Amino acid sequence: MKLALVQFNPIVGDLVGNANRILEFCQQAVSEQALAIVFPELAITGYPPEDLLLRNDFLNGVEKQLERISSECPLLTIVIGYPEKGEGVLFNSVAVLQAGELVANYRKQQLPNYGVFDEKRYFQAGAQACTFKLGSEVIGLSVCEDIWSSSVCDQLRQSDATLILNLNASPFEINKAEKRERTVCSRVKETGLPIIYLNQVGGQDELVFDGSSFVMNAAGKVVQRSAAFVESINYIDLDSLRNSTLEAKQDAQLPELESIYQALVLGVRDYVTKNGFKGAVLGLSGGIDSALVLAVAADALGGDSVEVVLMPSKYTADMSNEDAIKQAEALGVKHQTISIEPAVNAFSAMLEPAFEGLNADVTEENIQARSRGVVLMAISNKKRKILLTTGNKSEMSVGYATLYGDMAGGFAPIKDVPKMMVYALAKYRNEQSPVIPDRVIERPPSAELAPDQKDEDSLPPYPVLDDILERYVERDQSRREILDAGYEPAIVDRVLRLVEQNEYKRRQAPPGVKITSRAFGRERRFPMTSGFNKVLFSDD
Amino acid sequence: MKLALVQFNPIVGDLVGNANRILEFCQQAVSEQALAIVFPELAITGYPPEDLLLRNDFLNGVEKQLERISSECPLLTIVIGYPEKGEGVLFNSVAVLQAGELVANYRKQQLPNYGVFDEKRYFQAGAQACTFKLGSEVIGLSVCEDIWSSSVCDQLRQSDATLILNLNASPFEINKAEKRERTVCSRVKETGLPIIYLNQVGGQDELVFDGSSFVMNAAGKVVQRSAAFVESINYIDLDSLRNSTLEAKQDAQLPELESIYQALVLGVRDYVTKNGFKGAVLGLSGGIDSALVLAVAADALGGDSVEVVLMPSKYTADMSNEDAIKQAEALGVKHQTISIEPAVNAFSAMLEPAFEGLNADVTEENIQARSRGVVLMAISNKKRKILLTTGNKSEMSVGYATLYGDMAGGFAPIKDVPKMMVYALAKYRNEQSPVIPDRVIERPPSAELAPDQKDEDSLPPYPVLDDILERYVERDQSRREILDAGYEPAIVDRVLRLVEQNEYKRRQAPPGVKITSRAFGRERRFPMTSGFNKVLFSDD
Repeated sequence: MKLALVQFNPIVGDLVGNANRILEFCQQAVSEQALAIVFPELAITGYPPEDLLLRNDFLNGVEKQLERISSECPLLTIVIGYPEKGEGVLFNSVAVLQAGELVANYRKQQLPNYGVFDEKRYFQAGAQACTFKLGSEVIGLSVCEDIWSSSVCDQLRQSDATLILNLNASPFEINKAEKRERTVCSRVKETGLPIIYLNQVGGQDELVFDGSSFVMNAAGKVVQRSAAFVESINYIDLDSLRNSTLEAKQDAQLPELESIYQALVLGVRDYVTKNGFKGAVLGLSGGIDSALVLAVAADALGGDSVEVVLMPSKYTADMSNEDAIKQAEALGVKHQTISIEPAVNAFSAMLEPAFEGLNADVTEENIQARSRGVVLMAISNKKRKILLTTGNKSEMSVGYATLYGDMAGGFAPIKDVPKMMVYALAKYRNEQSPVIPDRVIERPPSAELAPDQKDEDSLPPYPVLDDILERYVERDQSRREILDAGYEPAIVDRVLRLVEQNEYKRRQAPPGVKITSRAFGRERRFPMTSGFNKVLFSDD
Repeated sequence: MKLALVQFNPIVGDLVGNANRILEFCQQAVSEQALAIVFPELAITGYPPEDLLLRNDFLNGVEKQLERISSECPLLTIVIGYPEKGEGVLFNSVAVLQAGELVANYRKQQLPNYGVFDEKRYFQAGAQACTFKLGSEVIGLSVCEDIWSSSVCDQLRQSDATLILNLNASPFEINKAEKRERTVCSRVKETGLPIIYLNQVGGQDELVFDGSSFVMNAAGKVVQRSAAFVESINYIDLDSLRNSTLEAKQDAQLPELESIYQALVLGVRDYVTKNGFKGAVLGLSGGIDSALVLAVAADALGGDSVEVVLMPSKYTADMSNEDAIKQAEALGVKHQTISIEPAVNAFSAMLEPAFEGLNADVTEENIQARSRGVVLMAISNKKRKILLTTGNKSEMSVGYATLYGDMAGGFAPIKDVPKMMVYALAKYRNEQSPVIPDRVIERPPSAELAPDQKDEDSLPPYPVLDDILERYVERDQSRREILDAGYEPAIVDRVLRLVEQNEYKRRQAPPGVKITSRAFGRERRFPMTSGFNKVLFSDD
């Protein structure tokens, strides 16, 4: 009794295209003599469909495509997630289709409404368990969040289920695959039932779904894993699921850095290809951030779809240009050099009357960054290649970036990667094949917007900065807790103040791949207008 | 028996500052011999506090300030909204403080989680009614959404309440004040009880709270209204509330255009002042959009806090410059002229090798818009004045704007105002005192980025465009429904396609005041990567 598990990469909203590809997978499963085929949560719409769910034309399209799938593939039992229209409400449901009929229908009971999730904006919670028969098996249905607490699996055990299916759209974050297996293992131990965990794969705006689907037997052993970060159809023989010989098939989970790197690659690839760009362009500075972004972009799209622009100014060190060219050549990407001096000089002259008698300040640095932004966007517009920005999470946190300057672009691959992790990922990538010159990794970081500028002139050393940021942004620690960890008040206060002051910049930042437990963007919803900093510094 | 009603303008997150001002109002109420004072929903934090609610340091600060308010003002009964920490959960609550003690506590039962609201992200719903005694009155408590259906008011009637207090943080939108009074009137008729509707006032990022608080007697008559869009303390004598002579005090609701204009003014004023800017700067083109934004900015901040820059190019008509200067002078704002030609020429020369053999296209228009963006941002940075963008909702909908060009800025006052309403508001403003030259209102709109360019070369006439957009964006109509309204398929398809294609631009747009029933931003959460357009055009 063979079950096909499709780790599906949908395009959100593309109901017809998704249905076409769902039917192709069904054909494959039929030709492999599978009895049933399973797709992830909301597979027909892709996840998350967001406010498309509020439109009737969209929901009508879902019904139409679901009927089409059902009627065009009557030979197979199809288990698939879809948004179900009830009376004035919507459910996050799973349909079980057999011979053109809906034989079972489950409505998700646990609706996540935290972090990146807004499911209570759209869905009503279901209230009961649902099982269906497949040969000798009684298969219990559950969706994503349902598996993170005991109640739904308990219901299924009491409904005499012999196996639990869990359909997911669970986004990647660091160590998430491990957490999922640990959690599912708890449910297996509580129920004594094997559990099949099937996840969506692919990039969707700020989220990357890693797949990492797996089958866990009743002993709590993973007997099968789907390769992470790729679309796949895998087959599991239910009769032999309880057979320990299956254990041999198990692949290892990916090591941490490899999983992060692959998340970035898939996030870039899917944003670029699903949105129909002809490739990518980025400014290569000779620094570590743009070096990593270039490596990711070349791995995602192929070196011949990527081009880079060197845009030196009078503050650019020779070694920056040398290293940038070296890297472009190592990856086989087209490079060109456009000095920004003519534009910077033009703006200086244009603004001279307005700025008469005023001192030079960060304005002049911003003009350099924005001149680069104009050049890159012009190339992006002209060639229909997406502009990738190169800012990391440490910079985004403290606003060490120029709005409409180096922040200009359609996608920000490393916006959720802290600086120290940028170094680690660069080294990891070089271990696979050397593409980033050693000097880029070793030299002290600089924005090169003023003479002999170093990041550490304005910011604490990155190991300190990153730790403070993680405590404050990801773990919601108070100023007092961070001070108790041993940091100097002057440094802590400066960092926290910068985080609070720069929400307005982050609100206008391009999207980028979430990899941490709390990414900026839809996962951290802070007011721009806020007096919270006054609270922050008065907590003693 | 006098009750003080504070239509409060808090700063979100500024717990100490808000508490200070709450105590000031309490002192005023004491000196006016009031028995009790009422503040709006979550008055201590300001609304919406968003993810600040997830931080313990913030919630501890709330407790501290609430204790302080309670102990520093023991003479008055204080009714105030605050976030209440329960066991691992949070409630949107109302405290009733008497003589330093918490004598009653109500937990909001109906939590809005649609539109701009995310209350289920933070709060657990309460489960029971709450009343407290004040002299001979039994006062029933309710919070915002509670009043929009019957159940909470029913509970209060059954609890023998003699009066219902409704504490709000209800954002402005067109005709909202009227809707509120109609809804409250239904509750009055169902319960036979008078209702006091008290609302927050002030701008908070994309939302403007209009106040528009009112007192409705048991006959369903409004006997008192607080002036809209201003902070105020008003007193109501409960003993005479049932007395018809009170009716004389009633002020009229504002006419529609006046309320919209005032919402824009308050939104700009509060964003600029609460964020500590020294004023505002904007590019004045001689067109209607920047003319309206300038009028709003000058009315919000005073003409001497605003400056404008004229940035002509070779495509700028003489009358554009003339009209711009005329308007600046009429409003007494500083103006200067900076030609963008030197920057545009510099970029052309810099990009010549890269663009060799490629035709001119929208890239060259974008370079003009972005050169203006660099100039304006430089002035903004140097003078710490916020840059206001001038794009309207029609343009934002179809992406008729340049990212990092005319979209560059910190606040977008008219981003939710459709073009036809821009005209209506300009005429309304001129009726008060003539500040926008007639020719600006009368001439055909043009972006002036190419020779003899008119908006209507690229877009349908604005009356058509605006109606299609309202149907599609605000009312979720399908393509078929819009066609049935009598529009040509070619026009409808073009508009809908542009709306779908430009989500990425809107995601990087600055915040601006919500005035319609569905603003872009947090109220309309659409995926950027989306295949929905394929569904849209296959609905027949």
